[in-house]
Amino acid sequence: MIQTPYLLFLGDAPDQLAAKVAQGIRDWRPEYALGQYRMDGCKADMKLPDMNLAEAHAASARTLVIGVANRGGVISKKWKEVLHTALEQGFDIASGLHNLLRDEHDLVETAQRHGRTLHDVRVPSVQYPIANGVKRTGKRCLAVGTDCSVGKMYTALAMDKEMRDRGLKASFRATGQTGILITGDGVPLDAVIADFMAGSVEYLTPDNDADHWDLIEGQGSLFHVSYSGVTMALIHGGQPDALILCHEPTRDHMRGLPGYQLPSLEALRDTALNLAKVANPACQVVGISVNTQHMGDEEATAYLAEVEARMGLPAVDPFRHGAGRLVDALAAI
Amino acid sequence: MIQTPYLLFLGDAPDQLAAKVAQGIRDWRPEYALGQYRMDGCKADMKLPDMNLAEAHAASARTLVIGVANRGGVISKKWKEVLHTALEQGFDIASGLHNLLRDEHDLVETAQRHGRTLHDVRVPSVQYPIANGVKRTGKRCLAVGTDCSVGKMYTALAMDKEMRDRGLKASFRATGQTGILITGDGVPLDAVIADFMAGSVEYLTPDNDADHWDLIEGQGSLFHVSYSGVTMALIHGGQPDALILCHEPTRDHMRGLPGYQLPSLEALRDTALNLAKVANPACQVVGISVNTQHMGDEEATAYLAEVEARMGLPAVDPFRHGAGRLVDALAAI
Repeated sequence: MIQTPYLLFLGDAPDQLAAKVAQGIRDWRPEYALGQYRMDGCKADMKLPDMNLAEAHAASARTLVIGVANRGGVISKKWKEVLHTALEQGFDIASGLHNLLRDEHDLVETAQRHGRTLHDVRVPSVQYPIANGVKRTGKRCLAVGTDCSVGKMYTALAMDKEMRDRGLKASFRATGQTGILITGDGVPLDAVIADFMAGSVEYLTPDNDADHWDLIEGQGSLFHVSYSGVTMALIHGGQPDALILCHEPTRDHMRGLPGYQLPSLEALRDTALNLAKVANPACQVVGISVNTQHMGDEEATAYLAEVEARMGLPAVDPFRHGAGRLVDALAAI
Repeated sequence: MIQTPYLLFLGDAPDQLAAKVAQGIRDWRPEYALGQYRMDGCKADMKLPDMNLAEAHAASARTLVIGVANRGGVISKKWKEVLHTALEQGFDIASGLHNLLRDEHDLVETAQRHGRTLHDVRVPSVQYPIANGVKRTGKRCLAVGTDCSVGKMYTALAMDKEMRDRGLKASFRATGQTGILITGDGVPLDAVIADFMAGSVEYLTPDNDADHWDLIEGQGSLFHVSYSGVTMALIHGGQPDALILCHEPTRDHMRGLPGYQLPSLEALRDTALNLAKVANPACQVVGISVNTQHMGDEEATAYLAEVEARMGLPAVDPFRHGAGRLVDALAAI
């Protein structure tokens, strides 16, 4: 568990996109985003107060989150001075970079000397159990996609926010690096050992109040041959009561797999639901989330109407139109 | 790659079943099984020449394979003296125990001093790639089960043997500890990091002659919630041309999951084939392998006839009746 609130480290980000982890925290957990730390030449801006380490610590920030990805995912020498000073001044550091904090011996040494923690959220910190399949209390919703990177995390975060805004009991359950940094907790599922994948999802979504919903961040796709095993473990470990289908309609092949076509929403519905019923016979597909970022307003509206009529399920782009109708659909089951 | 031939270490096995790894090597790779090493009190017997270390080394054995599982999977103190002497006399050691050889510092030290290798086949020794889904040459057959431990490894080994006896080109591809020790090579799939599972299966079953068949050892089941992600990675990473359905008809619930019923063979056929076609649209289900060990002869024969009529596919128990008809079915596609 990463201590909040955060000071967001933007380093020398070459553009706004390079700081998308910081943007995710800013968008979804603004209460954690106390301020930003920018170095000379930083081209990203979260519209947060610029703070130095001492100011942020005085304002109660306890973790410096590396909110920026360098090309190559490395911890640059330029950053090191700030990171050492942060540890000395009482900050933990959290990072989702490929280049692990724990592999930088100088940082480990400084952290040990000052009793601080280095959080590498790419690496599991828990010995997960093997899944036991026992039915858990509370309800769970899982976003599944026709492909990778179609908006599954965004959909779950938007539904979580909408539910909490309505005063409903909900928890976003992170299964990837960005999600873990946003919420401060979760399972880095793609780094878990095969035998323990489904067990790690059970661990992430334990027994809860009967009217509480876990909004589980999806990973991969049952139709993406590189990562389908991870998706499968989410479906069986998560034992979802509800599935949301996620889709990006302008893509001409599966991400990273030229020659592989995206499945239809019907194929995703039937395949995912069939498998989900193994772990939870009551599971239902309740709605469709479409990422229409590459469509104009009219085109998007027409597409969503067509999908909604064809599938008989609410179809929305939560970024354009909010997640309200998806939450309505959840509340109805 | 583990050097062959082997001296099979049976230790102080309390019964024949405790030495099932040695039995597997004896049954399926008799040419690797040069002799057996038994300690006082050993109750297992592979009907191989009893050899001491010097005799076995003189007869060209190069690896001492731990062919026995202790209760708890540990490397007992009694064994240690033999293992040290083996390393000193020029043997590598291979083990599939939970208790890793590499975690025994005294063994590591002796191995280093004598330039020998400790093979822990439970742990991947390769940095596997992420699967790229590119179509490979040659043909692949995968055994999939209604449950775990229904005979998938046995089926693939029996088909491999039958094909090689007929002079056909075939390779058994091991994905578990016992299979790796039997063949000396393979991928310990349940210990691979999630993101690399499908890639490890691609690595295991590379381009080959157009008329060569890989017989891939299955793992888990799409219907077993603890391990289904591993099975999914095999189906997509293996891009099989042919599936064999494996079943054990007397089981009253999924292994280790009270309350979970086994699926029908029809459900397994439809679910597995649907998913396999993502990676290989030409995939076919070609036969059914039934483990009838808990049935009498007549009951088994009647059951197989019923399944064969119902499913329209050859249904055999390869242990009772050989794998000939399954190989005929493969040869026909």
